[in-house]
Amino acid sequence: MAVIEQWGLFEFALEGPQDGNPFIEVAFGARFRFQHREIDVPGFYDGAGIYRLRFMPDVPGDWEYLTYSSASQLDNLPGKFTCVTPSADNHGPVRVHNMHHLAYADGTPYWQVGTTCYVWTHQGDALEEQTLETLKNAPFNKMRMCVFPKHYTFNANEPEYYPFEKLENGAWDFERFNPAFFQHFEQRVADLLALGIEADLILFHPYDRWGFATMDAEVDDRYLRYIVARLAAYRNVWWSMANEWDLMKAKSEADWDRFFRIVQENDPSQHLRSVHNWRTFYDYNKPWVTHASIQIVGVSMNLEPIRDWHKQYKKPIIIDECCYEGNIPDRWGNITPQEMVRRFWESTIHGAYAGHGETYLHPQDILWWSKGGVLHGQSSERIAFYQRILEETPPQGLEPLETGIHSFKWAGVPGQYYLGYFGIHQPGAAIFNLPDGQYQTEVIDTWDMTITPLPPSETGKFQVELPSKPYMAVRVRRVTT
Amino acid sequence: MAVIEQWGLFEFALEGPQDGNPFIEVAFGARFRFQHREIDVPGFYDGAGIYRLRFMPDVPGDWEYLTYSSASQLDNLPGKFTCVTPSADNHGPVRVHNMHHLAYADGTPYWQVGTTCYVWTHQGDALEEQTLETLKNAPFNKMRMCVFPKHYTFNANEPEYYPFEKLENGAWDFERFNPAFFQHFEQRVADLLALGIEADLILFHPYDRWGFATMDAEVDDRYLRYIVARLAAYRNVWWSMANEWDLMKAKSEADWDRFFRIVQENDPSQHLRSVHNWRTFYDYNKPWVTHASIQIVGVSMNLEPIRDWHKQYKKPIIIDECCYEGNIPDRWGNITPQEMVRRFWESTIHGAYAGHGETYLHPQDILWWSKGGVLHGQSSERIAFYQRILEETPPQGLEPLETGIHSFKWAGVPGQYYLGYFGIHQPGAAIFNLPDGQYQTEVIDTWDMTITPLPPSETGKFQVELPSKPYMAVRVRRVTT
Repeated sequence: MAVIEQWGLFEFALEGPQDGNPFIEVAFGARFRFQHREIDVPGFYDGAGIYRLRFMPDVPGDWEYLTYSSASQLDNLPGKFTCVTPSADNHGPVRVHNMHHLAYADGTPYWQVGTTCYVWTHQGDALEEQTLETLKNAPFNKMRMCVFPKHYTFNANEPEYYPFEKLENGAWDFERFNPAFFQHFEQRVADLLALGIEADLILFHPYDRWGFATMDAEVDDRYLRYIVARLAAYRNVWWSMANEWDLMKAKSEADWDRFFRIVQENDPSQHLRSVHNWRTFYDYNKPWVTHASIQIVGVSMNLEPIRDWHKQYKKPIIIDECCYEGNIPDRWGNITPQEMVRRFWESTIHGAYAGHGETYLHPQDILWWSKGGVLHGQSSERIAFYQRILEETPPQGLEPLETGIHSFKWAGVPGQYYLGYFGIHQPGAAIFNLPDGQYQTEVIDTWDMTITPLPPSETGKFQVELPSKPYMAVRVRRVTT
Repeated sequence: MAVIEQWGLFEFALEGPQDGNPFIEVAFGARFRFQHREIDVPGFYDGAGIYRLRFMPDVPGDWEYLTYSSASQLDNLPGKFTCVTPSADNHGPVRVHNMHHLAYADGTPYWQVGTTCYVWTHQGDALEEQTLETLKNAPFNKMRMCVFPKHYTFNANEPEYYPFEKLENGAWDFERFNPAFFQHFEQRVADLLALGIEADLILFHPYDRWGFATMDAEVDDRYLRYIVARLAAYRNVWWSMANEWDLMKAKSEADWDRFFRIVQENDPSQHLRSVHNWRTFYDYNKPWVTHASIQIVGVSMNLEPIRDWHKQYKKPIIIDECCYEGNIPDRWGNITPQEMVRRFWESTIHGAYAGHGETYLHPQDILWWSKGGVLHGQSSERIAFYQRILEETPPQGLEPLETGIHSFKWAGVPGQYYLGYFGIHQPGAAIFNLPDGQYQTEVIDTWDMTITPLPPSETGKFQVELPSKPYMAVRVRRVTT
């Protein structure tokens, strides 16, 4: 009997009908049983007469299943496997934790530190493997990535695989998926899983010259069911309905609501779900949205509105796009590394998480933000340092605090832990007035990556010297006796 | 007969009654005549039986006057003087020019580059003379300064002079001005005039431990009439009703309206008038306001709202306070020199003018922003460089343009002159699509203070390389043939 670890991927394949159009004509799934629980899991046609079904068991013990299908060959076939406790690096899928935060299913905090390589899986194996090699040594634990290829500045190349077969006349056959496309794509999702990186899969996006942004509703919906059937058993998957949903003029808000519900209904593992904006937010208060995936408009350097969203949505806030470190002409793609790092820290102080990207001009148009490759900038090293501080925050997650110091905002746990950040400001001193107790203050240079501990205070009222430089933070922790 | 240059200061003194309270009991003024024009000018009591009257003639030729007074000694006394063309450095008072801009009365453009030393005239001669020496070598052509002394952090010292006499019980005699106070103050205004610096006189402010912020309406109004009578003939005077008017809780909006009208009615020379905010703007659309004097709230780094104010007020916009270069704990007083300079450039690109200040911690609490002294920072040198670029802009003034480049805003004259600024962004290139013509582009490093001309373009469509550094500007001028 198969042995699968908890949150591992159980998969089986069956031979079935090849005639007609199996993508459309054959229904296929299985009902999984664990003690009193029953879970219906959709399978999918993988071409060449092969039908597959994947499932991520979420509890150790003996599981059974029974297939169902419109094809008698595939119907009513029983099976079972044993689910065992997970290996050391497997903490399960990421879930919402403590309202504004995230944790793996086993309770381990997940401190989101994202990056974006929109179409890295469409660049051919050499570059894709270089991207994976880069990620191995980078701080990022989430990758934002599109399913469909991208048409845009710096993105003139054709992808190696297309998601649909072609008709004889050269048009897409939107009734037939190309299994090779999805096999390749899911291998890349698995590659990220092996690196401990969450894959935030962008299901639609507007930057398109092939017609994938303007398919009709029937094709959209079938595509969603297909990709969810193929990928929902990978524990590192997140679903992002779109990159810049409000730029996809062919779709209405009702379409987006429907997409969310299709994903929600077809994903047995209930991965995280959101959608990313250009200028207009989708209503993140809708019940099927698990967290807010936000692009901050490039012109604004002020991240304090995060505090309002925090209260408004009562869900994790991820600033997935806040401009990219780089030097392309476009305003959204030429902030300094200092500013990229500042936006991570500011997001944290306001109770949110952030996302990185790089857009340096490159002779072959290999920009990290879209194609991956190697990192050219100076922010990722500082983001790794930031990540270390983040991972040392209290496990319940940092909440933005109402009171600050000298008009600078804080995050923390009142009376216990405070993280403050001065950004472009360069105070030479700060005066604290905290609840009674002794406190240990550390002065953190977020750019030069140093942590300088100061002698513990006598009381909650104390003053510290600061080095009159920008990009400094302070960490204040109560001394426990 | 006296000879006074145009926009110079004509003054005469008369001996009059000393008994009772001349400040209250004696009305005194003169009607000036130039050809068909008649102008009533208030005089003032200067103590010790001396009554003075000052007047700034605005046109060359022969002027006559006749005094009027409730005291017979001072009444119906004739006089005359000849007004001659001004000397080379005398361009007259600053006026609104071309709706959003400023010019001296002789038409010379006035490119406002301000600084703030709120109470520099209350620091004793040694420090005050050092301030003047500093200003001699600094780029600033406007000083924001309070009439009354200041009580605030870093401002614990008592002033040398007080504006009122004291009663025997030690309370202020709000019915008797202290002429020595005003004599000293107006000497400092004259000192600024000698340096070519406009004196933006702040008539009220909230930072007070003496009671000057909470005088009753009768005293307020008498004080306004008195200071206007004393100072309106200095051509470098501007009137600012308040610093942070909305923090002066003892006064209503109707009080401020009345203050404006008193100044307007009593100033024969109609100097510029505005009022400065903390969080809430006074309605700059009111007809007695000549320009908007704005504090940008410290937390915001985004200066684009200037463009809205530009359209809303149709008056010059001066960002008189946009935080200060320094390292004090307070958020408004610890921006980097880079950020201070950035705010000047951003203001310009959006069609406004800006103001500087410095707040570096000092062992004797001598912070430029309040007391003057010497400059410790790095922004003023770059502001001098900025001033050079500003003075080379078209004389009609830079208007913000609706279209930009790569989402960066421009100011200029369409088809003729464009000034663009990239701020913290670091593009490696920019692509231009201007009206047909040949253009000369210069790449300006606003921090390192270099100007690099590029070869002229062939057409309006061209691309330029940029150095992938922050704080760069570009100046694009049509090549005239």
